[in-house]
Amino acid sequence: MTTTRSTEILETALDAVARAARPTARSAAATRAGWLRHVADRLDRAGGDLITIARAETHLTEARLVNELRRTTFQARLFADRLSSGSFDRVLIDPADGDWPMGARPDLRRTFIPIGPVLVFTASNFPFAFGVAGGDMVSALAAGCPVLIKAHPGHPELSRALYRLVADALAEAGAPDGALAMVEGEDSGRAAVRDARIRAVGFTGSTSGGRALFDLAMSRPDPIPFYAEMSSTNPVVITPRSWAARPAEIAAGFAASLTGSAGQLCTKPGVVFLPDVGGFLDQLPNLSAAPLLNDHILDGFHRTTSNMATRAGIVFGELSARDAAPILFRTNVAEAQANPDLMDLEMFGPAALLIEYTHLDQVVDAIDQLPGQLTASVHGGDQPDPQEAELVARLAEHAGRVLWNDWPTGLSVTDAQQHGGPYPATTAPLSTSVGTQSVWRFLRPVTFQNMPDEALPEGLRRNRNSPSFAEEQV
Amino acid sequence: MTTTRSTEILETALDAVARAARPTARSAAATRAGWLRHVADRLDRAGGDLITIARAETHLTEARLVNELRRTTFQARLFADRLSSGSFDRVLIDPADGDWPMGARPDLRRTFIPIGPVLVFTASNFPFAFGVAGGDMVSALAAGCPVLIKAHPGHPELSRALYRLVADALAEAGAPDGALAMVEGEDSGRAAVRDARIRAVGFTGSTSGGRALFDLAMSRPDPIPFYAEMSSTNPVVITPRSWAARPAEIAAGFAASLTGSAGQLCTKPGVVFLPDVGGFLDQLPNLSAAPLLNDHILDGFHRTTSNMATRAGIVFGELSARDAAPILFRTNVAEAQANPDLMDLEMFGPAALLIEYTHLDQVVDAIDQLPGQLTASVHGGDQPDPQEAELVARLAEHAGRVLWNDWPTGLSVTDAQQHGGPYPATTAPLSTSVGTQSVWRFLRPVTFQNMPDEALPEGLRRNRNSPSFAEEQV
Repeated sequence: MTTTRSTEILETALDAVARAARPTARSAAATRAGWLRHVADRLDRAGGDLITIARAETHLTEARLVNELRRTTFQARLFADRLSSGSFDRVLIDPADGDWPMGARPDLRRTFIPIGPVLVFTASNFPFAFGVAGGDMVSALAAGCPVLIKAHPGHPELSRALYRLVADALAEAGAPDGALAMVEGEDSGRAAVRDARIRAVGFTGSTSGGRALFDLAMSRPDPIPFYAEMSSTNPVVITPRSWAARPAEIAAGFAASLTGSAGQLCTKPGVVFLPDVGGFLDQLPNLSAAPLLNDHILDGFHRTTSNMATRAGIVFGELSARDAAPILFRTNVAEAQANPDLMDLEMFGPAALLIEYTHLDQVVDAIDQLPGQLTASVHGGDQPDPQEAELVARLAEHAGRVLWNDWPTGLSVTDAQQHGGPYPATTAPLSTSVGTQSVWRFLRPVTFQNMPDEALPEGLRRNRNSPSFAEEQV
Repeated sequence: MTTTRSTEILETALDAVARAARPTARSAAATRAGWLRHVADRLDRAGGDLITIARAETHLTEARLVNELRRTTFQARLFADRLSSGSFDRVLIDPADGDWPMGARPDLRRTFIPIGPVLVFTASNFPFAFGVAGGDMVSALAAGCPVLIKAHPGHPELSRALYRLVADALAEAGAPDGALAMVEGEDSGRAAVRDARIRAVGFTGSTSGGRALFDLAMSRPDPIPFYAEMSSTNPVVITPRSWAARPAEIAAGFAASLTGSAGQLCTKPGVVFLPDVGGFLDQLPNLSAAPLLNDHILDGFHRTTSNMATRAGIVFGELSARDAAPILFRTNVAEAQANPDLMDLEMFGPAALLIEYTHLDQVVDAIDQLPGQLTASVHGGDQPDPQEAELVARLAEHAGRVLWNDWPTGLSVTDAQQHGGPYPATTAPLSTSVGTQSVWRFLRPVTFQNMPDEALPEGLRRNRNSPSFAEEQV
């Protein structure tokens, strides 16, 4: 009975986004900007009520949720601003050229069109910013794609409230029926990944979950782009120079980055290379504990920390199945180099592996075997010396974002942001899931050859805004 | 014995490209431009000898091969020019901003870095332009990636001659050892797809071959980008207006496009919607026959045309296992709409399916079920009327390139070119395999946060070419 009902709901949702694809694709960028601004306004107005629901479902603090909701409306408005200013109108025009050296060239005009309905798997740890109205939805809608949300089971009531609000806001703003739809349940999510009407997928979550859905998408008769943001241990290298200069500052920065949002951030520093573990522990301030999102996340934290305990010694805190107090492990760089998977054991929560080294050369060598990362950080001198600069260059070979004397949490949403990286950080290393460039995940290039203005998209027409246009009409 | 030898050769090749990855990535764009220009110069000098080898192995005409070699050197020089002029330096810079609305923003600088060693499966039908020195190699090397070529078995001697020449030219020009390597044999190709040292794959060939290798790449512990350009029937719609206005011109254009290179082009018009099949056949000029590339291709032509003969009537030519004379099939739009796979049966060689319709509305409806295509063309009036414009817009939903009153063969290599499309045209609909934009397949975004100039890639430094730079040194 439930299954039949779920199947019906899924079919209705898929049909809705499929029917919305063409009108959404043909809407003007400025029109879509208006939709996103109205969604942001409605979210602002509903703020307090939404935060109350989110607190009950996620254990996140009010301050954190207020901040996250502000980020959510900010990013909707940022995409709206970029749509209004034409930032996503990336065109290339090669006029006909009889003298083109490889042979006469026809008129070629290249633009980007929406890929079609996008399925979005929302995340547990950011109920707003990676939720129903989060970055994937906003970037897909900005691209001109309808969105089918797979709600996260960690915050069902919030997802429903957000869905009602956003769908209503889109309708008020004049978006096509079906520009947003939502389903719940793992089976519905899996079925949607395989459905021919879905043309791309965005996912934020665990490697096991992301990989299973990625495999489903790749095994379709027609594989589609699958953008999963999954696992990262976000290595941090503390060089001898920085450690000598400012140990207390570094230890305090680590403590704050480790325990912020109870360590439940995809950019949490989970691996730290440092020259003196004992001295580091002496400098550490109090590491505050906080409840995790839900029992599922707590189980995962216990499982992954217990696994790490079989590989590395505990030097702070202790294993516990009942709560998630901060815990730190210790190994050395020779071990990490011999067993590079140690650098890849994500513990989602307030846990990290400290890797002691003697000479920075050892770190430079070890990171050649580093799995793909969202971020990598170096704490060095005021200015990088040649070896520190080499470290930065090598970390860039493995990560989407490389930081200097800074901590990876607190991801800013901007144009130049990059939140992605080689597998297992993501399944699509050439894209970002945060920042305005995430829109390109959902836009497909099309070139028009010898095409008259009457059948060209507006941005490719010859006579748009041309001073000679009026004269030619005469 | 052979297997052991192949395994050794493969291991040597993989080791070579892996060792070349860092020096190739760190070479300056202008330096790589020099490598490509020297390769083009050497190809020009060797021209006649190479063409003699190619003629013996491919049955292609001298004129066609001369033209193709010119295209090959042209595209190497085009990428060199774009490298020299900085066209691929796509950077985004967000300076630190304490007033950024979502919270103080750090300094963020985004650029693209090479993805690492690229494996290239060369094509049968373009021994030069999609061969050892072809577009995939040139775009990967332009991006800063070493290239491992999997030679095509259809032209082994030419592949070896090209490999010797290009590897030698690269060495002369100062490229790192291992910037180019080559292996032969299916087993080596499959093993290379799964090897951790390979970071992306380019492929041009059949859907069956491409899909099998794609599946291998996706099943890696760490899946990697896989760019396969595979199958396309390149539908052409001849509208009633165009047919009434210029039947002889259209029939002649079709005949030339169908039989050029004996129909062995990925952009060959294989499906034609037209209002009057009988009249079209009456207008057709002589369709010239030519030998196919090799017996393997001839077998495929016989198999696919025999398959089509079970689904549609033959209206020109006849089935033959011994040669590949042009052959045309006929069905109607109701059949195509009821069986959309009819629009997806690629026959590699001089064959096409003519689909008769009565009203253009029927075509507009049928193409909603069109599988992904490299190209789609409309022959209409001098200027598109509203229905023809709608047809163009709908074809763009399914194809990478849409043409007006033009034929899809004779692909020009330019900046605005797009050679790609939704599956099964390619496995990566957001990319192109022809034209300068193909370089982006092999470049990965990286953002540097709070990074001093000393550890930034040159294009991201604050003081590059700044008038104040010298003063600041004082």
